[in-house]
Amino acid sequence: MASGYRVAVVGASGTVGTEMVRILEERAFPVTELILLEPKKSIGAGVEYGGAEIPVRILEKGSFSGVDISFFASDEAVSREYAPSAVKGGGVVIDSSPAFRMSEDVPLVIPEINAPKIYLHKGIIANPGCSTIQMVLPLYPIHKRARIKRIVVSTYQAVSDCGQRAVDELTEQIRDLYSFREIRAEVYPHQIAFNALPHMDKFCENAYTAEEMNLANETRKIFEDDNVRICATSVQVPVFYSNSQSVNIETARKISPEEVRTLLGETPGVEVEDDPASNVYPLAVYATGRDECFVGRIREDFSVNNGIAMWIVSDNIRKGAALNAVQIAEQLILH
Amino acid sequence: MASGYRVAVVGASGTVGTEMVRILEERAFPVTELILLEPKKSIGAGVEYGGAEIPVRILEKGSFSGVDISFFASDEAVSREYAPSAVKGGGVVIDSSPAFRMSEDVPLVIPEINAPKIYLHKGIIANPGCSTIQMVLPLYPIHKRARIKRIVVSTYQAVSDCGQRAVDELTEQIRDLYSFREIRAEVYPHQIAFNALPHMDKFCENAYTAEEMNLANETRKIFEDDNVRICATSVQVPVFYSNSQSVNIETARKISPEEVRTLLGETPGVEVEDDPASNVYPLAVYATGRDECFVGRIREDFSVNNGIAMWIVSDNIRKGAALNAVQIAEQLILH
Repeated sequence: MASGYRVAVVGASGTVGTEMVRILEERAFPVTELILLEPKKSIGAGVEYGGAEIPVRILEKGSFSGVDISFFASDEAVSREYAPSAVKGGGVVIDSSPAFRMSEDVPLVIPEINAPKIYLHKGIIANPGCSTIQMVLPLYPIHKRARIKRIVVSTYQAVSDCGQRAVDELTEQIRDLYSFREIRAEVYPHQIAFNALPHMDKFCENAYTAEEMNLANETRKIFEDDNVRICATSVQVPVFYSNSQSVNIETARKISPEEVRTLLGETPGVEVEDDPASNVYPLAVYATGRDECFVGRIREDFSVNNGIAMWIVSDNIRKGAALNAVQIAEQLILH
Repeated sequence: MASGYRVAVVGASGTVGTEMVRILEERAFPVTELILLEPKKSIGAGVEYGGAEIPVRILEKGSFSGVDISFFASDEAVSREYAPSAVKGGGVVIDSSPAFRMSEDVPLVIPEINAPKIYLHKGIIANPGCSTIQMVLPLYPIHKRARIKRIVVSTYQAVSDCGQRAVDELTEQIRDLYSFREIRAEVYPHQIAFNALPHMDKFCENAYTAEEMNLANETRKIFEDDNVRICATSVQVPVFYSNSQSVNIETARKISPEEVRTLLGETPGVEVEDDPASNVYPLAVYATGRDECFVGRIREDFSVNNGIAMWIVSDNIRKGAALNAVQIAEQLILH
């Protein structure tokens, strides 16, 4: 392990990029130089780090000279265009966009689950989508114990999944509705305030959204099991931060709710919050700013043999994106 | 059919009761006298009907003398206490509370599906819960065609499900959050603004909520099929009106998404809104104030043989409550 690293954050003005900088500092990641980058059109104010404001520079293919680790926290197109340049200079890219997640030679990593994959990288390591991370973190140990055959998941996703502009759009739509003014919908095709939108990302030919297909495909890749059958419905709700999921699983071997609670109670990164009699279950407003993935409403799904239903909530910006990426980097430099 | 009826609405100051009065007028239900009632503690302003404001009177056991049809739109306790008095006087009760829904001698009716049951009443006819009505209306014809074996449903329910106080609580929490003031949570055990609460009604011993169990039990009663296995997760979201549902079904016989669309296109009370390429799918903000139950995102659920996934949205106060009750009364007086 070197004493420190030159680190770049691409998309540093965005919701996830800003949080990455905060987490790098919180967790005292050994940074010798921090280079913050944004495509010209997205360039924003500087970002606080180590008591100073670091300016955000314009992203160029030459930005990565001498950079050891580049966090990409922008969109898919930016990753596709600039990640190869970051790799060419000898650095490692930790990419939070969907660009390379399903590429065969790119490890898709949740460190608590498959950290060793990190060392098989060929320059790029992919950070899974936020929905995948929070669903797989608690389901993986159940899969190991009882083999999950099928997952049906419906999501309740925060607008911050779609970046700061979406956060602003919800904020402004509500303000406008409360002022009896006409609302504007630009980030979303319809009003998001006081609505539930069953549409995230583009629609595929099979009538699923890319968001839904990604969740299914990424889960199978991390499970290393193509036999797990998954049906997802991804829904945007008027919540600012933290995603919730209603998850039904069927397992090959019987596992009781009590066993699931015990197992998850011992799972790193997971916290069981499951005491309905005292109104205790995971909630988006409490998960926000926390590192854990919270699981509750764990109960038998009586509609099928070996069924379990549960409710999973996690901060989509932290464990769902920025924190997981920084954890990957922490593992990477251990080697 | 008589020329007109003496009609009482119990809970007339509430969200559903007020809407019932509006719908009775809209649909020109033959009313000779309209008696609006509320328990003393809930008594509110009068309600507009036929160009006049009808005062709301205090509900008493003697309130039903000479009343032909009593709509109960208050809570379960009120129905249990006062419905027998309304029946004793010779009138018919149409009850929107869960009080009598599962009683063997009480018909549970969605007129488009099982109108003839109305005439088997012994004084009380039950209006199903809003989640049941909107889920069963499109699923029933699919059940008849392909036999539904299993339903997994996750709901996105509007606060108006919990009455005007809940609507006010969401309104005020948002106003307070936007003003950087502390919020109050009285109707709900936790903040509802910008949150998703997997908790409606009380928890049962099996870790399901009464709301979830009611949805399952009422569906089986209307289907007249105890073999349909159902797992529900009922979630309150910061939406004012109209409930959304993410529904996955498994059928005994194969039915394609195209067949489902055609079948639902011919189903009274249902409207298919399913053109994702043009961003057309059912949405709570558009369903509000409408009578139809909207269905979209109809697609094959590839995670199981003979699986279909869909997204169902309906106005929880209209078809989900007030409209369905008035439709029951319309059928009742045909006899």
